[in-house]
Amino acid sequence: MESSIRFELIKEDKYTKARLGKLHTPHGVIETPIFMPVGTKATVKTMTPEELKEIGSQIILSNTYHLYLRPGHDLIKEAGGLHKFMHWDGPILTDSGGFQVFSLGDLRKITEEGVKFQSHIDGSRHFISPEKSIEIQNALGSDIAMAFDECAPYPASHDYVKNSLERTTRWAKRCIDAHQNPNQALFGIVQGGMYKDLREQSAKELVALDFPGYAIGGLSVGEPAEMMYDMLDFTVPFLPREKPRYNMGVGTPDYLIESVMRGIDMADCVLPTRIARNGTFLTSAGRIAIKNAKHERDFTPVDPECDCYCCKNYSKAYLRHLFREKEILGARLASIHNLHFLLKLMENIREAIRNDDLLAFRETFYKKYGYEL
Amino acid sequence: MESSIRFELIKEDKYTKARLGKLHTPHGVIETPIFMPVGTKATVKTMTPEELKEIGSQIILSNTYHLYLRPGHDLIKEAGGLHKFMHWDGPILTDSGGFQVFSLGDLRKITEEGVKFQSHIDGSRHFISPEKSIEIQNALGSDIAMAFDECAPYPASHDYVKNSLERTTRWAKRCIDAHQNPNQALFGIVQGGMYKDLREQSAKELVALDFPGYAIGGLSVGEPAEMMYDMLDFTVPFLPREKPRYNMGVGTPDYLIESVMRGIDMADCVLPTRIARNGTFLTSAGRIAIKNAKHERDFTPVDPECDCYCCKNYSKAYLRHLFREKEILGARLASIHNLHFLLKLMENIREAIRNDDLLAFRETFYKKYGYEL
Repeated sequence: MESSIRFELIKEDKYTKARLGKLHTPHGVIETPIFMPVGTKATVKTMTPEELKEIGSQIILSNTYHLYLRPGHDLIKEAGGLHKFMHWDGPILTDSGGFQVFSLGDLRKITEEGVKFQSHIDGSRHFISPEKSIEIQNALGSDIAMAFDECAPYPASHDYVKNSLERTTRWAKRCIDAHQNPNQALFGIVQGGMYKDLREQSAKELVALDFPGYAIGGLSVGEPAEMMYDMLDFTVPFLPREKPRYNMGVGTPDYLIESVMRGIDMADCVLPTRIARNGTFLTSAGRIAIKNAKHERDFTPVDPECDCYCCKNYSKAYLRHLFREKEILGARLASIHNLHFLLKLMENIREAIRNDDLLAFRETFYKKYGYEL
Repeated sequence: MESSIRFELIKEDKYTKARLGKLHTPHGVIETPIFMPVGTKATVKTMTPEELKEIGSQIILSNTYHLYLRPGHDLIKEAGGLHKFMHWDGPILTDSGGFQVFSLGDLRKITEEGVKFQSHIDGSRHFISPEKSIEIQNALGSDIAMAFDECAPYPASHDYVKNSLERTTRWAKRCIDAHQNPNQALFGIVQGGMYKDLREQSAKELVALDFPGYAIGGLSVGEPAEMMYDMLDFTVPFLPREKPRYNMGVGTPDYLIESVMRGIDMADCVLPTRIARNGTFLTSAGRIAIKNAKHERDFTPVDPECDCYCCKNYSKAYLRHLFREKEILGARLASIHNLHFLLKLMENIREAIRNDDLLAFRETFYKKYGYEL
């Protein structure tokens, strides 16, 4: 099947493996590298689609596992697909449900056929196979679907990870065979845990299947940062230069910068919106916990360098008041700010790549942010 | 002190006591009759000020009792006043704190001097007198402050209510003496419970004090609707024709229409936003409980006649999904819709008064809404 997306490689950085690109999808063009806000249950928590656009969101991610359970992919298909259901007309990437299902622990059982599991909501019994995952994602109608994989835990034995990645490759083939939606691109997911030989094996097997894009899965699962960087350094070169690369579940500024430097084009994470709802703000000078008493009478914005709606119009004192009173507007403003912060960071990264200036940008950013190089 | 507001009586209805007016305040002109969204803790729950304007909010109400406890009126004064603190540049009315303090029941004790009470948050001990209430409201810097009154419970004996209203009159005088902010108008509050002789006494005593506006307090406190309408019929004629009249705590469509017909210019209530957060929508065909299973696969808007952001872009099925999943966007969309519904109702009421058409408008509205005349 001809792919419904096209990746245009605009420029490669002189000094790092960072790349500037454009990903053409049925719902619009994404400038890469990009961060994807997460809208787990067909809503990026607290935000409207218009607000997401306003802060520069180009693509969002939604979760197959959650939408399958509630409200059901058949209902969303009946509504005209996920875009129409949630009133977002930009590109959407759906995960495969694999990661969520495997995270259920004792509630799931893996066989060659697929995964049996019990709903975390009501204990009801379900079965997701590669074919089922693709059926659900086809029904949701996302622009990019992900192959159903197993994200091996960390740590895990070489044997366990080898078996797991080989099954992931077999499942990847089944996903390709099952895939029916001509307006949806299917990405493969490289696994292999923290073993380089297995990362190489997984990458080669999946590249042979010729997916239009590749994710690197099984990173940012509790391993030390240096180990993740090492795995990226090692794995990315096995992936085709002309296809987009996606590091799953990465959303701190340092992880984003380090991923991009290693050749990553896309990333996603619930972190910015999750910590927002707890009153933590990402700023150019590091994180701020707004509920801290020291902000009580601070009438300055959270980040004086930020031009988001929150920073232009509200003070730390007001935000602290909203969070102390558990007012929804607080969670909204923090979500706007944190997502804007990461999206602006990606914009600055793209600009730095354009100017072959990424290393200097990184140094300046880290110094201000308080991150040790 | 010269009043900082001016009420312009544009037109009186031919067939009812309804009036069309303009209330000029330091932060803008309000077309009356108007409904005021409630922003208890310096935020209309879930909404930004821009969204409030978008749906036609002309003035909002904020609560003195809550802001006095948290974050404190001194902090808000330091922030530059309530408008700046919460980023709302339109008119604000603050209540006196009286109603909230009296609602504390066993936690408060009334004397001639004022009311001793314990905070509902942490049990800390406080004292609010007429002077203190005015001091707080002066610090908040609202456009309209309310005199500190006692809202007698319903039912209450003639003796109790008589004592209470006479103390309210004495307190009203103390409020006038204490009032210092030249950019703030102070309204008196007529009490008298469900006794006509006491309503008359209270109205006459307060009118003699020459406030720039009058509220009718102590209604919508549990009495039958007919009793409230009877009290309005009786009391309003004692109030000066050339000054605005405010029925406190009224926010259902029928109460609003009936109040306006009896000569009321302003009203407020938490109802539209409170029921919104519970998934109840006010529509032209009556109330809708969105969590009801019958809306599961209903892909039509909540109110096909409504042109609000929620009804233009989202289906009942999506809204039901959001409420089932306790997603904040659900509470936001319902709040936008319900406030828009009441503000649009008031706009239609103003148009009907302009055309001497209010009685016909009322009949049509009630028939559709399912309200018995």
